[in-house]
Amino acid sequence: MGRQYDTVSFLSDYGLSDEFVGVVKSVIRTLAPATAVIDLTHEIPPHDVRAGSLALVRAVQYLAPGIVLAVVDPGVGTDRRAVAVEVADGAAVFVGPDNGLMASAVAMAGGAGACVELTNEEYQLPAPGPTFAGRDVFAPAAAHLCNGVDLRELGPEIDPVTLRPGILPLPREEAGRLLCEVLWVDRFGNLQLNISEDEIAQFGDHVTLRFGEQIRTARRRRTYGDIKAGEVGLVVDSYGLLSLAFDRVSAAGELGLRPGDGVSLAEPE
Amino acid sequence: MGRQYDTVSFLSDYGLSDEFVGVVKSVIRTLAPATAVIDLTHEIPPHDVRAGSLALVRAVQYLAPGIVLAVVDPGVGTDRRAVAVEVADGAAVFVGPDNGLMASAVAMAGGAGACVELTNEEYQLPAPGPTFAGRDVFAPAAAHLCNGVDLRELGPEIDPVTLRPGILPLPREEAGRLLCEVLWVDRFGNLQLNISEDEIAQFGDHVTLRFGEQIRTARRRRTYGDIKAGEVGLVVDSYGLLSLAFDRVSAAGELGLRPGDGVSLAEPE
Amino acid sequence: MGRQYDTVSFLSDYGLSDEFVGVVKSVIRTLAPATAVIDLTHEIPPHDVRAGSLALVRAVQYLAPGIVLAVVDPGVGTDRRAVAVEVADGAAVFVGPDNGLMASAVAMAGGAGACVELTNEEYQLPAPGPTFAGRDVFAPAAAHLCNGVDLRELGPEIDPVTLRPGILPLPREEAGRLLCEVLWVDRFGNLQLNISEDEIAQFGDHVTLRFGEQIRTARRRRTYGDIKAGEVGLVVDSYGLLSLAFDRVSAAGELGLRPGDGVSLAEPE
Repeated sequence: MGRQYDTVSFLSDYGLSDEFVGVVKSVIRTLAPATAVIDLTHEIPPHDVRAGSLALVRAVQYLAPGIVLAVVDPGVGTDRRAVAVEVADGAAVFVGPDNGLMASAVAMAGGAGACVELTNEEYQLPAPGPTFAGRDVFAPAAAHLCNGVDLRELGPEIDPVTLRPGILPLPREEAGRLLCEVLWVDRFGNLQLNISEDEIAQFGDHVTLRFGEQIRTARRRRTYGDIKAGEVGLVVDSYGLLSLAFDRVSAAGELGLRPGDGVSLAEPE
Repeated sequence: MGRQYDTVSFLSDYGLSDEFVGVVKSVIRTLAPATAVIDLTHEIPPHDVRAGSLALVRAVQYLAPGIVLAVVDPGVGTDRRAVAVEVADGAAVFVGPDNGLMASAVAMAGGAGACVELTNEEYQLPAPGPTFAGRDVFAPAAAHLCNGVDLRELGPEIDPVTLRPGILPLPREEAGRLLCEVLWVDRFGNLQLNISEDEIAQFGDHVTLRFGEQIRTARRRRTYGDIKAGEVGLVVDSYGLLSLAFDRVSAAGELGLRPGDGVSLAEPE
Repeated sequence: MGRQYDTVSFLSDYGLSDEFVGVVKSVIRTLAPATAVIDLTHEIPPHDVRAGSLALVRAVQYLAPGIVLAVVDPGVGTDRRAVAVEVADGAAVFVGPDNGLMASAVAMAGGAGACVELTNEEYQLPAPGPTFAGRDVFAPAAAHLCNGVDLRELGPEIDPVTLRPGILPLPREEAGRLLCEVLWVDRFGNLQLNISEDEIAQFGDHVTLRFGEQIRTARRRRTYGDIKAGEVGLVVDSYGLLSLAFDRVSAAGELGLRPGDGVSLAEPE
């Protein structure tokens, strides 16, 4: 018997309109009734591995010990591998497709320890079709791990270096400008950039933004409520990254920016 | 005392924007604190008994033993009956309106055993108005059943043959064509048809689709990722039914089809 | 040690697209693993303190004893206070921003008892930035209260009379007309008014509605299913307030009304 777990943290692109999430939880409840499932989010845009990966990175340090079940899986049923990856000496196990989705969060949690490919059908549900691995492969794996089934029972060990890497875009400097990327547009329209406060420590209170054909000036502010009406605020967000924001207005809407868009930051000329 | 239950599987058209679902769960938590509630989905389109019925059918075989609480109830407060229906010798009890919503899932679970009409006000909340039976009638019934209150305490027994039947549309053959119906458009835009692989066993790898004014050719594929760009794939989905799909693109969007629309399948001429 | 709690009822404007709600629950799960979190709703429109306040008022009498965690907080990180407010001799504790959001629900629950400002950083998470108090301040406070930490450990006591009041709009009479307001448009498009049946007891079965440039006649009906096709129904809703409704059609859509809009009621001339 391996270690037992009592929490599954669950992220997917299943949405909440269909019963996918409920069925995955029903499978876990049936196989491992004492397990609590915590929904991180299921509204990752369909097939958007990058967005799912970034949400996991933002959440990972706050998760309760246990299983992290992550399913954004456009290659379901193909030869992409289904895997379970231990981190932190088994304090947590990531379960999901090997398509880069979990890689950055696994790295933040200390890197991959033991890994297996989920091929042992004794720990899966019989599948009427190959397209719902969350229900038939991943949920049973998560539940059996909670029950203390040893990781190595679920399938053959694989070398962690063969896991598909994640992609976290890094900012770069060019001609005195910092070329950044919008990582995330949150519910409130705030635009998280892939850059921390330290990296613009040499800048003053005003920062010149360039994106598309636009040039705007952003003002450093401590929190959203400090931003003046109509002003573009530059705030250290709750993850320690810089974020473009307006006060009670969507910055994404005002500036026309979306995840993946480039924005350069520079000192005013 | 009857059998006790520790799980309520809950489906509704309440949506997640209002606090309806939270209030139903609060009532259950207050009356039966040890009960876990698993949300199947609450985004059934308002009043859409057919869509709710099909979601229950898809989920039912995966549900944890216990209460199935199902509320899509356009006739709330009228003379439609509120009922509780045992299945599988009491392994599960369906609680909801007698409007056809639960009938097909009850049938799949082995058919209705003992049934009662939920009329005993001792097991209901006092209602300021008659429009929220989920809170005032169904949630208390589910909670009391979890606590071991006998089904027959909740109201008079009724004959299962008087329960309103469900409607599951069947395909039919006409002039060498199989006339099918779109049962469900899922989050990813896949179009589930009311037909299984066996029924087109005589067809080859290519199938001619007719719907509205359109004629298209679909190609049999094992999973979504095997579908070529631009191709209409015909996949056995995770419920064993045939589904029209594109690779990482919404088939519903591409083909302009919605639940209830007719599609005919035939061998290419 | 103070009293312990096992339930947190959680309302916010965080939405379900991001992982905010999941992270808050993860923090609670980590600090107070035995606690159940019940989601009231997280789809309060961004920054809409009024809508959040009204949802709390509708739900409060049905909540399980424990912590009420309420976060609609446009002033996060500014000098608005973070507070915890006991009600009903400690049967429940409201935790959230002091911006009027919780005031009406606190009043309905019997009024504020002991209150503290949440300033003790020993019971908070270190915050990379000041913008996610739900995660860093409110969730830890809720969890520690569940664990039996005394309210007064969380920060200095404050005088309940200094709490920011809520605003519940009252109807008024003018020239034989009752001037009301749309409090809430629910998922089904029903329009809840800030007036109860008693207040129109002198009216007959037909009521003249005036709003914007329109004059319509509403018909008193017992429940939605009793409303005739095309008719505006006036129904006592599940909170005992009058509601404008159509049968299986959105009254908000048909009448073009939204929360906050004025509607006058009068006897037909």
